[in-house]
Amino acid sequence: MEQSPARPPSARLDAFVDRYAARTAGMTASEIRALFAVASRPEVVSLAGGMPNISGLPLDVVGGAISDLVAQQGAVAMQYGSGQGVPELREQITDVMRLEGIEAHPDDVVVTVGSQQAVDLVTRVFCDPGDVVLCEAPSYVGALGVFKSYECEVVHAEMDAHGLVPEALRQAIASVKAAGKTIKFLYTIPNFHNPAGVTLSAERRPEILEICRAEGILILEDNPYGLLGFDQEPMRALRADSADNVIYLGSFSKTFAPGFRVGWALAPGPVREKLVLAQESATLCPPQFSQMAISAYLANHDWQGQIKQFREMYRGRRDAMVDALSDLMPASCRWNVPDGGFYVWLSLPPGVNAKAMLPRAVTARVAYVPGTAFYADGFGSNAMRLSFCYPTPERIREGVRRLAGVLEAEMELRATFGAPDQGKPALGSSGYDSPRIDLS
Amino acid sequence: MEQSPARPPSARLDAFVDRYAARTAGMTASEIRALFAVASRPEVVSLAGGMPNISGLPLDVVGGAISDLVAQQGAVAMQYGSGQGVPELREQITDVMRLEGIEAHPDDVVVTVGSQQAVDLVTRVFCDPGDVVLCEAPSYVGALGVFKSYECEVVHAEMDAHGLVPEALRQAIASVKAAGKTIKFLYTIPNFHNPAGVTLSAERRPEILEICRAEGILILEDNPYGLLGFDQEPMRALRADSADNVIYLGSFSKTFAPGFRVGWALAPGPVREKLVLAQESATLCPPQFSQMAISAYLANHDWQGQIKQFREMYRGRRDAMVDALSDLMPASCRWNVPDGGFYVWLSLPPGVNAKAMLPRAVTARVAYVPGTAFYADGFGSNAMRLSFCYPTPERIREGVRRLAGVLEAEMELRATFGAPDQGKPALGSSGYDSPRIDLS
Repeated sequence: MEQSPARPPSARLDAFVDRYAARTAGMTASEIRALFAVASRPEVVSLAGGMPNISGLPLDVVGGAISDLVAQQGAVAMQYGSGQGVPELREQITDVMRLEGIEAHPDDVVVTVGSQQAVDLVTRVFCDPGDVVLCEAPSYVGALGVFKSYECEVVHAEMDAHGLVPEALRQAIASVKAAGKTIKFLYTIPNFHNPAGVTLSAERRPEILEICRAEGILILEDNPYGLLGFDQEPMRALRADSADNVIYLGSFSKTFAPGFRVGWALAPGPVREKLVLAQESATLCPPQFSQMAISAYLANHDWQGQIKQFREMYRGRRDAMVDALSDLMPASCRWNVPDGGFYVWLSLPPGVNAKAMLPRAVTARVAYVPGTAFYADGFGSNAMRLSFCYPTPERIREGVRRLAGVLEAEMELRATFGAPDQGKPALGSSGYDSPRIDLS
Repeated sequence: MEQSPARPPSARLDAFVDRYAARTAGMTASEIRALFAVASRPEVVSLAGGMPNISGLPLDVVGGAISDLVAQQGAVAMQYGSGQGVPELREQITDVMRLEGIEAHPDDVVVTVGSQQAVDLVTRVFCDPGDVVLCEAPSYVGALGVFKSYECEVVHAEMDAHGLVPEALRQAIASVKAAGKTIKFLYTIPNFHNPAGVTLSAERRPEILEICRAEGILILEDNPYGLLGFDQEPMRALRADSADNVIYLGSFSKTFAPGFRVGWALAPGPVREKLVLAQESATLCPPQFSQMAISAYLANHDWQGQIKQFREMYRGRRDAMVDALSDLMPASCRWNVPDGGFYVWLSLPPGVNAKAMLPRAVTARVAYVPGTAFYADGFGSNAMRLSFCYPTPERIREGVRRLAGVLEAEMELRATFGAPDQGKPALGSSGYDSPRIDLS
């Protein structure tokens, strides 16, 4: 038995390469991961991340609540808990969802390790390899990763400025059915979409529900940003009008803080039972301490007032971004003005490849996420997601200024030497540019 | 769109029954779950659960550490973190593992939501449906649940009083290979086994390592109890002598507290990379707040002194249980005397079915886990796991007294009316009793 070295060199060959599960082939490090290590340097303005700005949280209130929790209920908070989650918190979660018109029983709520885990557990319960999941085009990169890891096939359906287009959804369903494949659910982010920034209009919601009901397609409604609208009250959730065909996912990551990793799924009874079993298998139980800390915060603090403060802060940053885009971007760029959430979707001049341009942007000290990250099929190469959640308004403007400079240099180069990417993008699997998505 | 009722009746038919993934068929509620709801009543002595007794933790120290954490690093602790886990904590985890002879680099540690999630992620990365996982007989019920949920086939190999029997492991490997199936790993709990209470002897460890190395079988070493030996220093981990063929799982759930849900996997570099990707897909990142709370506790408290106190407390409870068993159990019962951990494995008189007897035991206000829970193949019907971790010594003795009474009534009934279970057990899928396992 040889003595092992302190650290095996990481660049060596993978001795396990033939032993992984088939699904593991779909788990690959993002091509842009290395670049993001650079992008996290302080001199780079990151318009890439989705980190909420939690600097406004009252640390004294949170600290006091948690301190009391340890002193008064420490032995419970630090013990194993229910696989479904802390009952008091599940009750409070129904209060949160009531703001979006949802009447639910705490028994139908399953607490998860962030709503990311809820996406994972729902996919685990429903999807065999080869099953189809319908997603908006573009869609949340973290959900696409889950679907890929369960060997699902993602089929995108178009959005416009009013969210998912009902006719596009019908066409996507028809094409999947014609191919003899099974659709397991529609994954949708109706409010302040990540990455597209758009919101499904109130007029379209009944139609989307009706299409899915008629086709026997379950809806997975992912709603982390629903309470973060800038100028209006929360929209009525899809789940509010279709209790038996919608699994609703919520999260405290954006309305309170992500570091506790507490999200939830609200599901029809039989599905909820499966999700609890899946949760028990995955983690035994979600973190009891986190749940009780959030429960104490909700009970003892004006959490709705805090959300109002977050909304105002994010509105200021949204304004900073769209003002800077209007002032500084080349005329051939297009973008939308989101009514809430964290993101703007920027369409670049035809032929400009956002992924190919990223190293030059990072060199110019600005980062974004190329649009291709949000498509399962290689589209999105001439778009990008810009997030305004984390940097200050001043930094946002500076970041957009740098980005505009990179873009102008890119366009000038193309005007002088022709378009190197045309027809054959330097990066990107599909070999063609993304369709122009009019979200404005 | 009809208005949904406040709560759909849970007993209704499952409209989704035809839509679940194949793996979901393996996610079934335990038959004894309903009984455990009754068993959690205060008048019942539960020798069933695996909850650590954390009443000895210094709540003032923990509360102070967490309070300081919020005040000084709240904005970091409540933010998203790395998918691999907090670097400082991973450094401290290498200190913990050094107690078992492991020299590891923090870069090869992946923090998980309890070590349960580590079992889940390793299985996710390695196992396709139909792949074989080798397990001890009996094995940890929570791991068997994971293997089942990934549609693995579990093949058990016998243990005796010195842990996994090398010859039994060789035979199991040979039989699986003869059947043309693929073994993905050996799942083993070398120290103070759950549920069997035995420890793999120092003499056998090199042999087990050598068998697996020769056969190209990865080892998954699950070690939640290794530091909880009663009378000896920690054993040298399997990982300490086979860095490139062992994934080691550790946990703070038994040496500190489970409510934070922090465990870890230490894996060879290429596997670790896959586990980080799997973790990001599953949760984005493990709970940052939990990790930093534990890191602060480790940094500011005599955690090794606390573990010493836990060891003494659990030794007292082990003594209470084995003394009570010696004093009160019918002569035809057998059990082992564990050197650490939480569990005693009790073999019942031939023909007595532990699962069939459980309702009568709960009626007599004592609960245990029937042996069948710890086998994937229906064995274990005339054994049970008794845990001494949570009840006080007085309650343990009272629980054993009640259990002895139930057993004696059972045996008397059988002596008078014959054995109803003989040949055809009332419960249990295999149709035969478990082999007598001599762990004593």
